[in-house]
Amino acid sequence: MLTYSFTDIGSDSLYHHLYQCIRSDILSGKLASGEKLPSKRSFAKNLGVSNITVENAYAQLLAEGYISSVPKKGYYVREISGMIPSAGVNTENRPQQDISKKRCVADFVSNRINPEQFPFSIWAKLLRETLLNYHEELLEAPPWGGVLKLRHAISAHLKAFRNMDVSEEQIIIGAGTEYLYGLLIQLLGRDKVYAVENPGYHKIAQIYESNGVQCCFIPVGKTGMDVGELEKSACHVAHISPSHHFPTGIVTPVGARYELLGWATREEGRYIIEDDYDSEFRLVGKPIPTLQSIDRSERVIYMNTFTKTLASTIRISYMVLPGHLLEEFQKRLSFYSCTVSNFEQYTLARFIEEGYFEKHINRMRTYYRRIRDELVTAIRKSPLASCCEIAEEDAGLHFLLRMDTGLSDEELLHRAESAGIRLSALAQYYRNPAENVPRHTFIVNYSGFAGQEAANVVKMLAKCIFCG
Amino acid sequence: MLTYSFTDIGSDSLYHHLYQCIRSDILSGKLASGEKLPSKRSFAKNLGVSNITVENAYAQLLAEGYISSVPKKGYYVREISGMIPSAGVNTENRPQQDISKKRCVADFVSNRINPEQFPFSIWAKLLRETLLNYHEELLEAPPWGGVLKLRHAISAHLKAFRNMDVSEEQIIIGAGTEYLYGLLIQLLGRDKVYAVENPGYHKIAQIYESNGVQCCFIPVGKTGMDVGELEKSACHVAHISPSHHFPTGIVTPVGARYELLGWATREEGRYIIEDDYDSEFRLVGKPIPTLQSIDRSERVIYMNTFTKTLASTIRISYMVLPGHLLEEFQKRLSFYSCTVSNFEQYTLARFIEEGYFEKHINRMRTYYRRIRDELVTAIRKSPLASCCEIAEEDAGLHFLLRMDTGLSDEELLHRAESAGIRLSALAQYYRNPAENVPRHTFIVNYSGFAGQEAANVVKMLAKCIFCG
Repeated sequence: MLTYSFTDIGSDSLYHHLYQCIRSDILSGKLASGEKLPSKRSFAKNLGVSNITVENAYAQLLAEGYISSVPKKGYYVREISGMIPSAGVNTENRPQQDISKKRCVADFVSNRINPEQFPFSIWAKLLRETLLNYHEELLEAPPWGGVLKLRHAISAHLKAFRNMDVSEEQIIIGAGTEYLYGLLIQLLGRDKVYAVENPGYHKIAQIYESNGVQCCFIPVGKTGMDVGELEKSACHVAHISPSHHFPTGIVTPVGARYELLGWATREEGRYIIEDDYDSEFRLVGKPIPTLQSIDRSERVIYMNTFTKTLASTIRISYMVLPGHLLEEFQKRLSFYSCTVSNFEQYTLARFIEEGYFEKHINRMRTYYRRIRDELVTAIRKSPLASCCEIAEEDAGLHFLLRMDTGLSDEELLHRAESAGIRLSALAQYYRNPAENVPRHTFIVNYSGFAGQEAANVVKMLAKCIFCG
Repeated sequence: MLTYSFTDIGSDSLYHHLYQCIRSDILSGKLASGEKLPSKRSFAKNLGVSNITVENAYAQLLAEGYISSVPKKGYYVREISGMIPSAGVNTENRPQQDISKKRCVADFVSNRINPEQFPFSIWAKLLRETLLNYHEELLEAPPWGGVLKLRHAISAHLKAFRNMDVSEEQIIIGAGTEYLYGLLIQLLGRDKVYAVENPGYHKIAQIYESNGVQCCFIPVGKTGMDVGELEKSACHVAHISPSHHFPTGIVTPVGARYELLGWATREEGRYIIEDDYDSEFRLVGKPIPTLQSIDRSERVIYMNTFTKTLASTIRISYMVLPGHLLEEFQKRLSFYSCTVSNFEQYTLARFIEEGYFEKHINRMRTYYRRIRDELVTAIRKSPLASCCEIAEEDAGLHFLLRMDTGLSDEELLHRAESAGIRLSALAQYYRNPAENVPRHTFIVNYSGFAGQEAANVVKMLAKCIFCG
């Protein structure tokens, strides 16, 4: 039977790896046209993967026309000469994908969570109980802001964890922060100019631009978004992440937070969107109060998500609206149905209320601290120690590595990639990179780093910098 | 202990009813300030409702400041003199809510599904197995269009049920059609003018308007959206529901479908959004081919949802993009993460693949046919028979009742409401009701009609028309 190796596939998914292996064998002729592929079940058993992995790989090959399905018989390789690649296949990307597939030993770019860390058994138990006991509630359309029980649980969590006094009414649940940004544009208005951080998370600007509203890139200084530049701009709404800026890792100190609030209150119609996306993972020190909690003028919209703390594939996020915006939302936007399934809202509510969420966060924090410590220790003990500096390592799930090197960022990233190490450079997160963009600074996002020897990975990184 | 009655609460939810009862007793002084409320568990037991119902009611009272919570002791009535009503409480609405609460015996307006009809045990089984067997897949970010397994299942379902040849790549999953409309605006452009049906489902126009795009109300004639009027307008995109128009119930015949396609192909950049929202519930006759399946020019975007067929609180919908739009979507919008949880995508995929969805649809169709037949028979046997006409009763989940009466629509709706019967009038679904709007035509949406005697309800309706 066909056999493929699943070791060293890095950040590639199992089904995608399998799909690529089979496709490659079809394209090279190793699998001839008309040949029958193994049955899903036996193939999965042989490869040591789940049936669904094989099923997904076959589904994609089927969709792209590499194989055909004969009912009750199985899957066969199709004649592919002259086949037109379908919309989803970008064949130009293939060589690149193959490199990263073959060699990736450590991925410091993607935001995956190690599956071993998800609390499957507790989640399954709560879900089962919810399905058993909440028949009526599960099928009843929730209020527009989401299921009250979940909003109540979040409000209590925000009080305990962030010292925020927020009523459940103010909390609006949505299927991911990306969706909530779209609602905020409708709430605050398309005629507003939105300030985004530069450098910053590209997606935020993409969403504003895709929705046809003007956005303006404001530089991030030593304490977060530069208030002087913000004041000089024509912006009305500042979208910031003061508790842990991505990618610089800056935590905005209290003084600068008051300056930001000062900017917001100076003129009518100014607002701050406070994105608190990974504040739960602060590793040392006391938390700094959220802007929302020190705002006395109803200028701050607080946002957070469970996609970082629980799983990125459970799409539950929320925002906290100040009173007058809540009324405005109710008047103009409450016709929208809540986008998150009741089934998951009730399950998450119980997960929080019964203390599992807090335990999970604590466990994850310990887990991430260990990974960070291993990496930092390995770097300090390696030849890299003499020519690099580690920065912003105490908050969130990434730190910065500033290298003293003659290599260009591009060359260094390329060498690392060839050695199987996926990294990104700080400069990549700037809009219109200018001369004053910091070079030789790399982002080590360790949320998906698992199962590898930190010392080995660092050794390999050092080797590709010093030896090329 | 406090006791409230839960009979005749009509379409009001249990928790909201309980919340209103307690609030009313607090406002009237029947529950005095400082008084302790029963514990959630014993109160629930006493009332014969679930704990969560009491919990939700208490949560809302707490949020609105009517009661306070003392840790480890319980809930107490607060001193409310001079209390400022919080944002969520619209006290002006109260008397009206009280009327509908007290007397509602039949609700022909809301879209609720009878909880007894949801396949809880199968859904729970599939969800449990999914959680047990799909660890890696559940935590892996799906492609931007959604989980491949679900898209594959939908593609097979569309082939079997609607004779549509659609690859899984073309299917894009989203958390409700409302969310997908937002994506389509970004895909097709804000400079386009969107044609919506008049009369029609108000929410569609609300979404376009809330997103700041121009929309134009095109009259619905005997065969659906009037193509002549559409041609005269400046519209680029027609948003229609040809398989079952709401609220008229019109099914667009094949000839008119080709005319619509003709309009779309006559100029570059024209598109049709085909909303097939309840086609599964056609009760008699052969299905008419979807516009998507007869479109040869890539002008039709097909949409459907599981919120009607499964439950409105499981937020899963999808759209089918033609090839060139799919490429455009991939280029400009694939940065958005899929908004539906992987857990529910995999569960729904198996629900469809393993034949449960088809069985469920068949069962629901029989169930709805029986309810419709009971209502229609009851009307035909009642005094109403001589002065009303039933129309469009074979498709979807509602029919029309045209009354020969001297009463105004408002008066008739008011009388019905006083008798506890919630109805809506066709005229309410028109934008800027003009003189040619059909009067005396009422919409009987029977999807939430359950557990009542059709004959009694019809008798009451007749009584309030003839006797006032």
